[in-house]
Amino acid sequence: MHAITIPEPGGPEALVWAEVPDPVPGEGEVLVEVAASAVNRADIMQRQGFYDPPPGASPYPGLECSGRVAALGTGVTGWSVGDEVCALLGGGGYAEKVAVPAGQLLPVPEGIDVRRAAALPEVVCTVWSNVFMVAHLRPGETLLVHGGSSGIGTMAIQLAKAVGAKVAVTAGTKEKLERCAELGADILINYREQDFVAEVKEATGGAGADVILDNMGAKYLDRNVRALAVNGRLAIIGMQGGRKGELDIGTLLAKRAAVSATSLRARPLEEKTAIVAAVREHVWPLLGGGSGARVRPIVDRELPMSDAPAAHRVVEESGHIGKVLLIAP
Amino acid sequence: MHAITIPEPGGPEALVWAEVPDPVPGEGEVLVEVAASAVNRADIMQRQGFYDPPPGASPYPGLECSGRVAALGTGVTGWSVGDEVCALLGGGGYAEKVAVPAGQLLPVPEGIDVRRAAALPEVVCTVWSNVFMVAHLRPGETLLVHGGSSGIGTMAIQLAKAVGAKVAVTAGTKEKLERCAELGADILINYREQDFVAEVKEATGGAGADVILDNMGAKYLDRNVRALAVNGRLAIIGMQGGRKGELDIGTLLAKRAAVSATSLRARPLEEKTAIVAAVREHVWPLLGGGSGARVRPIVDRELPMSDAPAAHRVVEESGHIGKVLLIAP
Repeated sequence: MHAITIPEPGGPEALVWAEVPDPVPGEGEVLVEVAASAVNRADIMQRQGFYDPPPGASPYPGLECSGRVAALGTGVTGWSVGDEVCALLGGGGYAEKVAVPAGQLLPVPEGIDVRRAAALPEVVCTVWSNVFMVAHLRPGETLLVHGGSSGIGTMAIQLAKAVGAKVAVTAGTKEKLERCAELGADILINYREQDFVAEVKEATGGAGADVILDNMGAKYLDRNVRALAVNGRLAIIGMQGGRKGELDIGTLLAKRAAVSATSLRARPLEEKTAIVAAVREHVWPLLGGGSGARVRPIVDRELPMSDAPAAHRVVEESGHIGKVLLIAP
Repeated sequence: MHAITIPEPGGPEALVWAEVPDPVPGEGEVLVEVAASAVNRADIMQRQGFYDPPPGASPYPGLECSGRVAALGTGVTGWSVGDEVCALLGGGGYAEKVAVPAGQLLPVPEGIDVRRAAALPEVVCTVWSNVFMVAHLRPGETLLVHGGSSGIGTMAIQLAKAVGAKVAVTAGTKEKLERCAELGADILINYREQDFVAEVKEATGGAGADVILDNMGAKYLDRNVRALAVNGRLAIIGMQGGRKGELDIGTLLAKRAAVSATSLRARPLEEKTAIVAAVREHVWPLLGGGSGARVRPIVDRELPMSDAPAAHRVVEESGHIGKVLLIAP
């Protein structure tokens, strides 16, 4: 088969579409013939040489895919050859085929094209595990999402609205904020022009955000803690603004608040399986492809998988809204 | 009645035993004739002028007491005049009488002297709410308790052992560590001579602590994060080592760990009531006065309430093990 390989870490051109050996599904794994994958920030870090795949994972980038079941490893039940699926991967999505633990597979939701389903696994699992399983966002609470127009952001808005929460978002352009509003965001904050702490406080009668989903890490740590409500929960999933920041424990304590940080990729199989099962139970019934669906995959554009360098450039320039898909040949 | 008043903030001598008006129980409150109160670090901060009582609370120090129900306000059910009780207070325990919301009362456990029951409410509610309700310590997990010989520490050791956890403690003397061992602590760390991060890692096969109960705040923040296990939870309840510290979000994220901070005193009535109810359900059945009981109040010494300055000196010098009680006349 072909896959995107990284002979030497570097810029987007480091991604090379090349002939590689076919993967073989191990015990409990399923071989998926890939229809599409999607770009995640972790892929960019892997390309740059800063994020090695976890032990046992495919050496190729790609943390999610959609496609059809091509073969079953031993001991797999519940799936059949030909099933349309999407999957959370430890790596290897930028390829024509990938072997996946069966616990990381999800059916393609009804009404959603198999290719567009590649936009779902990483964002749905990340948002659900952080905002709901860790931070326990409840109906009537306020969620602040940084980077509201990103793949993660567009899914967080939709899921939070679907459970009856109020949603504040930050983004850097009017166009991005407008798309967030179309998806249901209630409070729109242009981080280039506005102070998100002041804006969130004002929009919540001084209370602050009950849950914050953050991809900035150190740069926003102090402001996020100040923007939290009493009993607030800050869930950090990225460190685009650095990894070490000053924590004001006094403010955290006065608010009885909490800071958590997680990454999905490094979780062991049993945790990924538990998250995928929870997502299938709680999120899958909300999904659909039509405009009447409560939650939809948001796709910025589709590019051929062999054009992965161009796709990475789009994501690195943050010009996109939602997910950038890579379509297998 | 008499109470300990603070005419001017300052050293221990700022505590003055004086004649004051009797409290009157409001709706839903109970008037308790105090048998004993106990010293908490918050009382010292209040004496120094750094910790004002929350709105509506008694101006006198004292976050817990034991005694007998002397009168019932309107709307109180489930309690009768003469009942032996102990109570979590917003303040006012250093007095002959105190008015308490009925939801913050607990019965004196069978086999425990009414005076010694004053050693229970603050430590039991603090440990239960943080280690179990927030950090969800589970059987088989490892809890690291800083200040293992303090009132909080001695209760945390006992409760964690009662639920089947492994317990590591830090303390500053051999004598204190020996008392922690008698209460069940498995891993003894002299923080003056040993690196608690290295000791906890070594004693857990490199894994680290699943839950840490911390009273040091900033000074220990980085080391606590390094001492956490994967999926670890750091629960901060004090800032004896400062309020602002550097948080290594990268380590937190790699461990999928969380940092929470709480204080009990500032919680609204409904949260205190929920904690007291949980404590009555889960902790009260474990308590007793005899050596066969699974959990006992640990009392360092009893002093007359009018000697509150001497009691504060004992706690400020950290020479005590367990709680220092103030006995009402």
